[in-house]
Amino acid sequence: MTLEEAIGLVRNADASVAIDTQRRLDRLTKPQGSLGRLEELAVRYCAMTGERKPSVPRGVLFTLAADHGVVDEGVSAYPRDVTAQMVRNFLRGGAGVNVLARHEGIEVRVIDIGVAHDFGSLPGLVDRKLMMSTRNMAREEAMPRAIAERACAIGVDLAVAAANEGIGLIGTGEMGIGNTTASAAITAVMTGATVDHVTGMGTGIDEQGRKAKVEVIERTLARHHPDPADAVGVLSKIGGLEIAGLAGLIVGSAAARIPIVLDGFIAGAAALIACALQPRCRQYLIAAHRSVERGHDVLLEHLQLKPLLDLELRLGEGTGACLGMGLVQASVKILAEMATFGEAGVSERGS
Amino acid sequence: MTLEEAIGLVRNADASVAIDTQRRLDRLTKPQGSLGRLEELAVRYCAMTGERKPSVPRGVLFTLAADHGVVDEGVSAYPRDVTAQMVRNFLRGGAGVNVLARHEGIEVRVIDIGVAHDFGSLPGLVDRKLMMSTRNMAREEAMPRAIAERACAIGVDLAVAAANEGIGLIGTGEMGIGNTTASAAITAVMTGATVDHVTGMGTGIDEQGRKAKVEVIERTLARHHPDPADAVGVLSKIGGLEIAGLAGLIVGSAAARIPIVLDGFIAGAAALIACALQPRCRQYLIAAHRSVERGHDVLLEHLQLKPLLDLELRLGEGTGACLGMGLVQASVKILAEMATFGEAGVSERGS
Repeated sequence: MTLEEAIGLVRNADASVAIDTQRRLDRLTKPQGSLGRLEELAVRYCAMTGERKPSVPRGVLFTLAADHGVVDEGVSAYPRDVTAQMVRNFLRGGAGVNVLARHEGIEVRVIDIGVAHDFGSLPGLVDRKLMMSTRNMAREEAMPRAIAERACAIGVDLAVAAANEGIGLIGTGEMGIGNTTASAAITAVMTGATVDHVTGMGTGIDEQGRKAKVEVIERTLARHHPDPADAVGVLSKIGGLEIAGLAGLIVGSAAARIPIVLDGFIAGAAALIACALQPRCRQYLIAAHRSVERGHDVLLEHLQLKPLLDLELRLGEGTGACLGMGLVQASVKILAEMATFGEAGVSERGS
Repeated sequence: MTLEEAIGLVRNADASVAIDTQRRLDRLTKPQGSLGRLEELAVRYCAMTGERKPSVPRGVLFTLAADHGVVDEGVSAYPRDVTAQMVRNFLRGGAGVNVLARHEGIEVRVIDIGVAHDFGSLPGLVDRKLMMSTRNMAREEAMPRAIAERACAIGVDLAVAAANEGIGLIGTGEMGIGNTTASAAITAVMTGATVDHVTGMGTGIDEQGRKAKVEVIERTLARHHPDPADAVGVLSKIGGLEIAGLAGLIVGSAAARIPIVLDGFIAGAAALIACALQPRCRQYLIAAHRSVERGHDVLLEHLQLKPLLDLELRLGEGTGACLGMGLVQASVKILAEMATFGEAGVSERGS
């Protein structure tokens, strides 16, 4: 399926299913509304999927990895090699995302969409490499437009394949040294906020480093003048490959009516792109958590998404998304497993 | 073990273990501190238990049920019978707490410490009934002082038995129509806040009902003059039996160095009592979530506890505690299962 085809398939979530689901929740043995945001999640899940009696969805987290040429500008606290090293760590199960995914019963799939390293044939790694890193956006376009389109299409394909496997819940993960820089640039372009306002410490630079990062992004935007009305053009000028892939994954999931749980700041930048391509995508998004990364709040407000968790996470990889996916599954279980007042012989209020 | 003996056994959490645990976390393959409050949880867990290499603790949630004589004053939206009906619902696994406990792999134990119903011999129910409901605190003392002491001792015994079974994580749950009234009264007495400030809508009364509830509590406090320096006296005058049991459970767990995950407002009222009896108990408390119930914030601030979740829950039963217990287990897994930089061959920052 092409990106354009997926964009054309995204429908509105089903408002009548939402109403029926809230009615069902109101018959369960609890004061109405007393499970708060878990009820909201159950209602949204059913409206997205169109299911009135959902079973607990099988969840898969896609962690897309790619390198960023802009690392040459000294924007990151970690060397570029860490992207490839962490890919191996993911495949061995030793990273934060692996631990939290196992905890929540979520499968992690690791996709190389542009890591600057030749892995050869590495068991478990999904090879969709389009480039050996993006180019340095501060000096030239991050990738050709055709590559940006192909990266999005790879994401769409991952979602379509997942839908065919019966996967009912998708989470976004990423790994890419330098990708908070690309994400801050995308956030500034797509929301209209100043670069300074949306550029944070990433994996741990200091305030001096952050100022230098702001300067690099401002220089990049002055060079390329990315147009927010041309979202694929923004990806082409800024990158990254994993962000383009995640944008496609979001569009493809929405087209397949699969709820998507966003991790943090980088996932949010991908969501800005996806929603620019197809505004209805927003209805399929669940924000797992509020990241410590500066700029995440701006982005969530622009997307009108209220995060579920605020655990001061800033690791990425999909760590926060795993916890959010667990809450989505819990909300579906509430709907599927709780007794009604009638079934349990419990008196309703004022009776 | 008596309540006094348990109070005498509570030690400070181990600061040197906390330091070693943070050092271990800083060697794991992630930017330092990037798992935010999960790291804080892992550090606190180790400091509480004294374990440097913890395995994932088995978790049990104790849901204590009791009735409240003050329901005669019309303070609740639900009839008193619901307490007993919900006990049966818990035992059949159809309540919210059952669903969330199963989701998190937590065992629920249901204890009748004062329900106004004769269950006969009901499989699965732990019978520790001391009274058939408290008396109406607005007209007389809720229970004799000796009963308040016995209720606390029952909680201590539950914790001691759990420790002997190798249970490493305890959660607090409760069921008792009318118990937000008793909890608001306790919160006002123990924190010095006005009754109006800490009295909320409970399971769903309206503002007029809330004002009547405030008036009942003010009348009760004017009659009994409970002394915050005499915490058992406060329990005796106000109740409830489940709150007294939970206070004992907290003291007993702290004495056994078992971390205690608090649910919402009623659990918090029990924690105020426990910490008045033994201030070191606070070091063993983890606040699972911020409840919608007015007064919970006042109580958490008084206890200097920052809740993990804010999901707008107000169901009680231990529902929020289950989700919090899951996060504690996840934090221990981070410590136990993540690879170090050395093990994974990942470059550290700036290297």
